[in-house]
Amino acid sequence: MKRRILIKVLALLLGLIALSMIPSLFLAIADRHEQSIRAFLYPILVCTSGALLALLLGKSSQVFLNAGDGFLLVSLAWFLTSILGSIPFIVTGVVSNPVDALFESVSGFTTTGATIFADVETLPRAILFWRAMTHWLGGMGIVVLTVALIPLLGVGGFQLLKAEAPGPEKDKITPKITATAKILWFIYIGLTALEVLLLMIGGMNWFDAVTHAFATMATGGFGTKNASIAYYNSAWIDWVITIFMILAGMNFSLYYRALQGKFQDIIKNTELKVYLAIILIASLLIALTLLPKYNTMAEALRFSSFQVASILTTTGFATADFDLWPSFAKAVLLVLMFIGGCSGSTGGGIKVVRHVVLFKQAGNEIRRLLHPRGVFSIQLNGRVGRKDVVYGVAGFVFLYLALVFAVTMVVTISGADLVSALSTALVTVGNIGPGFGIVGPSQNYAHYPDYVKLVCSFAMVAGRLELWTVFILFTPEFWRR
Amino acid sequence: MKRRILIKVLALLLGLIALSMIPSLFLAIADRHEQSIRAFLYPILVCTSGALLALLLGKSSQVFLNAGDGFLLVSLAWFLTSILGSIPFIVTGVVSNPVDALFESVSGFTTTGATIFADVETLPRAILFWRAMTHWLGGMGIVVLTVALIPLLGVGGFQLLKAEAPGPEKDKITPKITATAKILWFIYIGLTALEVLLLMIGGMNWFDAVTHAFATMATGGFGTKNASIAYYNSAWIDWVITIFMILAGMNFSLYYRALQGKFQDIIKNTELKVYLAIILIASLLIALTLLPKYNTMAEALRFSSFQVASILTTTGFATADFDLWPSFAKAVLLVLMFIGGCSGSTGGGIKVVRHVVLFKQAGNEIRRLLHPRGVFSIQLNGRVGRKDVVYGVAGFVFLYLALVFAVTMVVTISGADLVSALSTALVTVGNIGPGFGIVGPSQNYAHYPDYVKLVCSFAMVAGRLELWTVFILFTPEFWRR
Repeated sequence: MKRRILIKVLALLLGLIALSMIPSLFLAIADRHEQSIRAFLYPILVCTSGALLALLLGKSSQVFLNAGDGFLLVSLAWFLTSILGSIPFIVTGVVSNPVDALFESVSGFTTTGATIFADVETLPRAILFWRAMTHWLGGMGIVVLTVALIPLLGVGGFQLLKAEAPGPEKDKITPKITATAKILWFIYIGLTALEVLLLMIGGMNWFDAVTHAFATMATGGFGTKNASIAYYNSAWIDWVITIFMILAGMNFSLYYRALQGKFQDIIKNTELKVYLAIILIASLLIALTLLPKYNTMAEALRFSSFQVASILTTTGFATADFDLWPSFAKAVLLVLMFIGGCSGSTGGGIKVVRHVVLFKQAGNEIRRLLHPRGVFSIQLNGRVGRKDVVYGVAGFVFLYLALVFAVTMVVTISGADLVSALSTALVTVGNIGPGFGIVGPSQNYAHYPDYVKLVCSFAMVAGRLELWTVFILFTPEFWRR
Repeated sequence: MKRRILIKVLALLLGLIALSMIPSLFLAIADRHEQSIRAFLYPILVCTSGALLALLLGKSSQVFLNAGDGFLLVSLAWFLTSILGSIPFIVTGVVSNPVDALFESVSGFTTTGATIFADVETLPRAILFWRAMTHWLGGMGIVVLTVALIPLLGVGGFQLLKAEAPGPEKDKITPKITATAKILWFIYIGLTALEVLLLMIGGMNWFDAVTHAFATMATGGFGTKNASIAYYNSAWIDWVITIFMILAGMNFSLYYRALQGKFQDIIKNTELKVYLAIILIASLLIALTLLPKYNTMAEALRFSSFQVASILTTTGFATADFDLWPSFAKAVLLVLMFIGGCSGSTGGGIKVVRHVVLFKQAGNEIRRLLHPRGVFSIQLNGRVGRKDVVYGVAGFVFLYLALVFAVTMVVTISGADLVSALSTALVTVGNIGPGFGIVGPSQNYAHYPDYVKLVCSFAMVAGRLELWTVFILFTPEFWRR
């Protein structure tokens, strides 16, 4: 019975993938690019057959899936999607190594934006659109997962507020997941459309505007130009993308509150305040170091805030090669790589709220020194947080850093220097994309040996799925169920 | 009343410093080195006067000092000691910059071992002995602080086991702090004497044996030769120091258990097992990468285990310039820099037990996914740990990493590259000593501007005093008492 549901959900996923490949197929036909047509037609046919098979299996009754099943399902779905997503890269012949194709597909769906292409401008439009589409789908999947699904499980520090807190309403947006998901899709599509419009006003053609809007809203980072956003050399485009990266890195449930007119909830949101403060402070600090390089503070701020937003929200677009910036600016970006976006956003990383929780916990420990018999709680969004939130956050951050260091060690085996290796680990686990040194903004991942690409692919998926989803599969307890 | 105790304790400290300068004074007289004689005679006279003043203040009645007073006292003591300890460096004229003298003194007392001297072999013996003495005193101070004093406060994840646990005895060694301190001094002196003996058997003269034993037992790292331990080029000396670094990085309360014949407690100690496992695995991994460089596995292990023990225990001695090792070996050492020694040892860093707690917490979170209604505790030393231990550890690790990144940013302002800056922060906050790049084993800290040296000095003291002791002084709550 459970297996039947599993198959059905995965088959429906196939339908979604087939649907998402159709725009690329049309582009291939419009460009009369025969290899691209085949590259998308074949997987569409395979996926559609799978989806039809699911309909044949018929409607099954509601069966309660436990947490373990859920995690297995999510991991399998991500695995299957990554494999299917890599097919167009191979069939079009733009990559010859299947590991490269898988890496690019995983990097797309996890909204990382790390690429193995040295020259994206020679790629067929169908492929460029597909790369953007993988971002956009992945970003949406993550928002639904982290806003609608994971909080129900109450792990990893996501269920932040006490269920019994006397707040105006529960933290879940609506009780039913499907209804929540629909609202989130609506917000996501709306913001994407708005960005497309603004980018076209800035002079982008529709193709570039759509692909970049997809990549921005997903905090992905795949572009259509080798120089990333620097290609357009436009202050308007830079600022539009900066603002939309920041919007994409915010908790999507806040947009729903805005739609409801509950602005009080937004103003009170602790994570949002800290997130915006980090962007402001980091942008100002870096702008000051860049002042000798650019003529005015406005110009310096344009480039610093773009790169700050790009790294913090884990997007990975670039308007400047920050690997050539002064050490201090690089150190600030390194710290941002450890932070990440807000919970419930398309951004990756450790997430701002987890840092807020640990910061407040550190403050409580100091207070406890002065008042050994005092009882201290953590306040979030103007309310008292759950007592066990620190447990989840502490476990998560430890696992996160352990994975970062494990990946660093694997990357160094290939001979990479320490900064390149550490930043490779940080930007793959954190779904950022470009790092320092041999994975800097002007570089790519093609030079790494296959085992590094595979480990990075694993790291991207693990980081994207909030670690637990993937790590649970490696425990004997999980399989003993 | 409280102020009177404060003055008395600080004055007694002066007496201790005066006493500890006497061996250096004798060496200065023996060497007929006039500047050194003055450099130690003056501070001895000043300190002795202070100590006599304390006796004049007379015996005060027992007054309960609260936690806040304790932290103020410890911080003041460390500050005063560092200032007084820097005087000989200035008076002898071996340094001209007072900031350099302070840095060297702080580095000594905090058992860091970072030096501003490019050439230690030209220093007078009195100064070399003083550097070793600062280590030895600092190491002892820390053991008493962390084994006997801090557990009474129950913060920062040090009070690990439930007070009500049905174990064979309380985790405190003896109820009275003074009695505990005496036992710890006895163990410390005994181990130091044993190492002196073994080093002299290995061919060291008494001066080198004593100074190196002082630096080893304190996990300090100051030596008397520019090439550090590599100078002696002796497998016997390398292995003796490796073993004593490992012994110094172990919890000193375990030695007391051994004296009592309670070997069961030692075998059951979780932290010790993990600590030894880390040394073994890291040494083997690095030995494999060094195999092409050295002739045999035994030789590769000799050099890998020395450097592994030196970094993990936060000593900082070197028998090889690990900055020239392959990236993978450097990555392993980088990870060790984040770990540190055992709690209650002379080693610094985050400490092994805090990693154990977070690792177990991560495991519990995964278990909670599978059994949402389950209750999970953390087992340490075969017993159930305190429920709030995770709180203390989480707050501590966050503060630790925040300090590391803050120091990294300050260091990059001086123009240092990212690896050098990050490792400078790690090795000062963690009290290790040498890092990578411009602070590598063959380098020193003289080239840094004064503000970096001052920030590093602060970092060394903060790291040494388990952060809280220092950070509490920056809270408004502390001064509002």
